[in-house]
Amino acid sequence: VSARILSSSLVARVQAGQLHAVARLISRAEQGGPEVRPALAEIYRRAGRAHVIGITGVPGSGKSTLVGKLTGRMLACGRRVGIIAIDPSSPYSGGAILGDRIRMSEMAHDPRVFIRSMATHGATGGMAHTTLDAVDILDVAGFETIFVETVGVGQDEVHIAKAAHTTIVVSAPGLGDELQAMKAGLLEIADIHVVSKCDRSDANRTITDLEQMLMLGMASDGSNWAVEVVGTSSVAETGLDELVEAIERHRAYVARTPQGQPRGQAIAEFRLRKTAENLLLQRFADYFAREDGSSTGKLMRRESDPYSMAAALLERETLQNQ
Amino acid sequence: VSARILSSSLVARVQAGQLHAVARLISRAEQGGPEVRPALAEIYRRAGRAHVIGITGVPGSGKSTLVGKLTGRMLACGRRVGIIAIDPSSPYSGGAILGDRIRMSEMAHDPRVFIRSMATHGATGGMAHTTLDAVDILDVAGFETIFVETVGVGQDEVHIAKAAHTTIVVSAPGLGDELQAMKAGLLEIADIHVVSKCDRSDANRTITDLEQMLMLGMASDGSNWAVEVVGTSSVAETGLDELVEAIERHRAYVARTPQGQPRGQAIAEFRLRKTAENLLLQRFADYFAREDGSSTGKLMRRESDPYSMAAALLERETLQNQ
Repeated sequence: VSARILSSSLVARVQAGQLHAVARLISRAEQGGPEVRPALAEIYRRAGRAHVIGITGVPGSGKSTLVGKLTGRMLACGRRVGIIAIDPSSPYSGGAILGDRIRMSEMAHDPRVFIRSMATHGATGGMAHTTLDAVDILDVAGFETIFVETVGVGQDEVHIAKAAHTTIVVSAPGLGDELQAMKAGLLEIADIHVVSKCDRSDANRTITDLEQMLMLGMASDGSNWAVEVVGTSSVAETGLDELVEAIERHRAYVARTPQGQPRGQAIAEFRLRKTAENLLLQRFADYFAREDGSSTGKLMRRESDPYSMAAALLERETLQNQ
Repeated sequence: VSARILSSSLVARVQAGQLHAVARLISRAEQGGPEVRPALAEIYRRAGRAHVIGITGVPGSGKSTLVGKLTGRMLACGRRVGIIAIDPSSPYSGGAILGDRIRMSEMAHDPRVFIRSMATHGATGGMAHTTLDAVDILDVAGFETIFVETVGVGQDEVHIAKAAHTTIVVSAPGLGDELQAMKAGLLEIADIHVVSKCDRSDANRTITDLEQMLMLGMASDGSNWAVEVVGTSSVAETGLDELVEAIERHRAYVARTPQGQPRGQAIAEFRLRKTAENLLLQRFADYFAREDGSSTGKLMRRESDPYSMAAALLERETLQNQ
């Protein structure tokens, strides 16, 4: 009964655009558990209007600054803008305070903008569906453009950026070897590539390298959208209008062509899979917490092995019911 | 029957120290599946002698160079050294070719060293237990010191570095805001802190900052090991002998004091949990692949929600049997 009450009153207030209701429901979604599910289920059914833009790139590529600049332009077009930033800063300390966030604080008091940092802390497996729940909450609250910003490191982060209508991968000149190698794994998911910091003299090289890699067919996802490369500079304020135009072109492409269909299907499938996996892992965690330490002791003494013990563990419980 | 044959012959050859058998069994472990489990179970029971050292740090902190230098010193002490590098480079392309790896190639032909890069590609949830299987394979093959190097971004990577007898967190001067914020999440897991690149003039500041954070109690894990901070320079070859001494001190501490016990218990528990979770997720993936697209279609049209559909999905199958 209390879940029902939470559901109907809070969802109604979200739908009325009340920002503290939005913030509260996102927090409840982050906490997880069965109580919040009816509300999130209702949110899901009412959502589906916003344009969701995934932005990813390795650390130092200038994602947050770019999101700030794009937000300004979207506001100028009369749109309300939601920003969900997945924050890998502190898996142990649980803080969600990237330095870059602070730079966006000029917008923090604008009621047309809602910014939320979500820590990856404690969110094994659950981060993907919680993020997508947060997107839907903002959608129902009337935000027309929603940015989902993730660091392009770690599989979940990359998949989340991909589970958007339009995915932007940000590259920057002058990153180290290790970051360059990480970047390679991101290139394929981009609908639009941005090379940031184009006020730097070595940016042309980054653009050329990127265009060469794209010619090698790295960006093919079966659709006939021609992946675009846009150079921007947040300092010199160049390339940003071109980027907004590219985003709008891709939005129209997804909405009006049959190629939008498989994209939506892939997102829905990802959503269902992640929600089910998380439910399963939560049930397992509850069950595992009730185990005594005898399995661990046997394992420590190497009297058994993790495979036999894991199989035995899963035989003992169906994990079907909460 | 074929699994039994794989098990007995391959494990025997690993135990005899045959490096191509080591490489083959690690590849089989990466592929996963039920066929390789008996072999890995046997490996687990025979392992437990090596000293496992987890090394982590944000991109650009100089982890790989440090592992190379430490490997040289361990070899000089008469030890055989195994290196497992978890490589986040390319989740989509599946390549495992960090530039840093190449720098270690001088050791690639030394039979006393075994280097293996493991891509995180396709390894959702499975990476942790596959890495620990690879560690055990090297252990059974007679490698006395095993380095597990992970980028300290992403929860699994951090947990893997922590699931070692000795965990080293590498910091470096002069990293950007975003990387500094990521670093904060790593500090608590260190038994030994290394500040690399101490030939740089700004390294003293990094050491001072780190020591201040440690005074604030960030490194307390309930044991009475006094966390050490060692400054190193791979260029100037300084601090490396001190680091080897600190590692040996920690090794002796874990082996000889009762505080080693909870550490081993935590590692065994992590191992069991990850193996069971992976088994569960594999069963779910097999089951989900057999689903027709009707659930996804309903979800796309927002006629239902992910929570109801996930719960219904899990009701239909017990996931108990392979």
